[in-house]
Amino acid sequence: MSGAAWNRNRLTEKLGIEYPIVQGPFGGFASQRLTAAVSNFGGLGSFGALNLAPEAIKEVAAEIRALTSKPFAMNLWVSMEDEGARRSDENAFRRSLSPIAAHFAELGAALPEYKPYSPTVRFEEQAHALLDAKVPVFSFIFGIPPREILQECRAKRIVTIGTATTPDEAAALRDAGVDAIAASGFEAAGHRGSFLRAAEDSLTGTMALVPQIVDIVDVPVIAAGGIADARGVIAAMALGAEAVQMGTVFLSCEESGASRLHHEVFLAKKAGHTGLTKGFTGRLARAVRNRLMEELNREGTETLPYPLQRGLVRHLTMAAEAAGRADLVPMWAGQSANLGACTDVAAFLKSLVEEVGEIAGPVTEWSAQRRWRSASA
Amino acid sequence: MSGAAWNRNRLTEKLGIEYPIVQGPFGGFASQRLTAAVSNFGGLGSFGALNLAPEAIKEVAAEIRALTSKPFAMNLWVSMEDEGARRSDENAFRRSLSPIAAHFAELGAALPEYKPYSPTVRFEEQAHALLDAKVPVFSFIFGIPPREILQECRAKRIVTIGTATTPDEAAALRDAGVDAIAASGFEAAGHRGSFLRAAEDSLTGTMALVPQIVDIVDVPVIAAGGIADARGVIAAMALGAEAVQMGTVFLSCEESGASRLHHEVFLAKKAGHTGLTKGFTGRLARAVRNRLMEELNREGTETLPYPLQRGLVRHLTMAAEAAGRADLVPMWAGQSANLGACTDVAAFLKSLVEEVGEIAGPVTEWSAQRRWRSASA
Repeated sequence: MSGAAWNRNRLTEKLGIEYPIVQGPFGGFASQRLTAAVSNFGGLGSFGALNLAPEAIKEVAAEIRALTSKPFAMNLWVSMEDEGARRSDENAFRRSLSPIAAHFAELGAALPEYKPYSPTVRFEEQAHALLDAKVPVFSFIFGIPPREILQECRAKRIVTIGTATTPDEAAALRDAGVDAIAASGFEAAGHRGSFLRAAEDSLTGTMALVPQIVDIVDVPVIAAGGIADARGVIAAMALGAEAVQMGTVFLSCEESGASRLHHEVFLAKKAGHTGLTKGFTGRLARAVRNRLMEELNREGTETLPYPLQRGLVRHLTMAAEAAGRADLVPMWAGQSANLGACTDVAAFLKSLVEEVGEIAGPVTEWSAQRRWRSASA
Repeated sequence: MSGAAWNRNRLTEKLGIEYPIVQGPFGGFASQRLTAAVSNFGGLGSFGALNLAPEAIKEVAAEIRALTSKPFAMNLWVSMEDEGARRSDENAFRRSLSPIAAHFAELGAALPEYKPYSPTVRFEEQAHALLDAKVPVFSFIFGIPPREILQECRAKRIVTIGTATTPDEAAALRDAGVDAIAASGFEAAGHRGSFLRAAEDSLTGTMALVPQIVDIVDVPVIAAGGIADARGVIAAMALGAEAVQMGTVFLSCEESGASRLHHEVFLAKKAGHTGLTKGFTGRLARAVRNRLMEELNREGTETLPYPLQRGLVRHLTMAAEAAGRADLVPMWAGQSANLGACTDVAAFLKSLVEEVGEIAGPVTEWSAQRRWRSASA
């Protein structure tokens, strides 16, 4: 339809990638294989490192580098615990355990025991490990890293991608000088990375969020949330995004670290109805609306501060996974889970860029002109 | 960019309009002038008639016809009261009045008195008035009209547009044989018209909702929610929609029936932060997050069933409007309120279709081909 190189823009230049397609980082389900597969194709693979100790971060970075010579991102959570996590006591633990206690008996698993919370890993230490490893791209959610970390990224030519769930957060990231901003819409899977207001008060649909952020920042915007096929990619570009971030569709790929149960839910197209809950980890996140979510979302149900609730629910998850009980496991998924079908990463991406390429040239050209017009207005 | 007539498709054919742009109907703020202005331009003006008695519906239809010879829509709510409305008693009234009672004193207004609920108007009577008036287009939310009403629409060549907030609702509308489906995303202003599950469990972002509905229905889909400028229109078309419905941006036009206070909020760009509440009417709806919303959204606050809560809050609204208190009035707005700027309807639409026309040709062609490919796959 047009000879314009739709896939090349200032973001792909800066990142050194072929296609403006970012694989969303997923905390517990990242895999070196998936990250490398996306990067090898020419997109930006990402690895969610939030649970990794500094040494493990260096190891994973080395492992990814053994699988690809292309740029990739590692992702951290700037804020690693909620207020109140350190004060949370055994009584709170018992209150939050009680609504799920019967499931442990049902699964023949021992009830978890209370242990006082002590943080195992700090963001700053993780960030320094990333810097030491000189990962090509450092992406983050739940806040803005301290100034000295961002400065060191610039000094080491590590590209930074911050995550905004509202225009206000995008403005804060812009002022901090990040290189690109992921606009994370309400539709997205997993945690809402809000950091200025409560996540519940920051829910913005991708359709509304992307253009409002494009209008107030001068760095490239990466649209995230609800994008699972070529239509979503073109829509995001029309809204002014210079790249997309897709999470759920990659989670469904064979290469992801998702469990067998989780894969089965995607394959059976049973991930079509999702909801938001704090019940799985203590922070608001999107997953398939299953029995566990319904129970934990019931009015009056108490939830421990992050990451204590996550620790509590993980005990149940392990037993439920072993028993093949998808109704009792957090099944992270975005609102377009039923749209995307990915068995093999390279095959999925090949078909995606072919379809996108049919129309993306004129759309990206129009979008770029429009941004230019409004910037000079 | 292309000579393709982006603005002509099977929906514009069926509706007999020039541009696939629908003005969202707004219950309390509809105006004959606005409806006619949009239709005169070549879009589809809509008039929210939910509060009108059958005789008034006929009068308004005649008034609109006096202002335009073009097609227009009138919109009804299929479900007009919530379960429990008839059983709701004076005690419930007092409990729901109590969190806002202080504002009446503050505004020097008398406290409203309890009156037992008696429905003033029934959907079936309203629908028959629309049929008698032979309005060109009958659009509706909150359900599906009885089969005989839809049959009469077909017999009278009245085009029907149903509203879906989830793919399941779209499937139900498709099975009922409506002519087009408005896919109403989470971002949209006003009431969530959900009718299969609770509105709270049906919140789907426009980016995720539109393609999932396009995939399962064979009638044209109208994308609604978060669309306020050319970018949103193009994005919607990329997602497979054959038209867009824009609400908030038209609400901000001089021609709309919105109050002076409401207009001022839009003009001052103070509608950027919206939220959902049942507190304003008893049904979940999106408006600017102001003091009244915060208070009514507080945990434990009781809300009367629709339409009783609406009646209660209207007393406060009238006093607050008179006192110029925007913080105590429901200020309906969608999540893209800050994107759109419309002072004059015709000028806004002229500039919109010019900008859309720069790129819509190839995008709509691609979309149509894609729909055709997937329908024949």
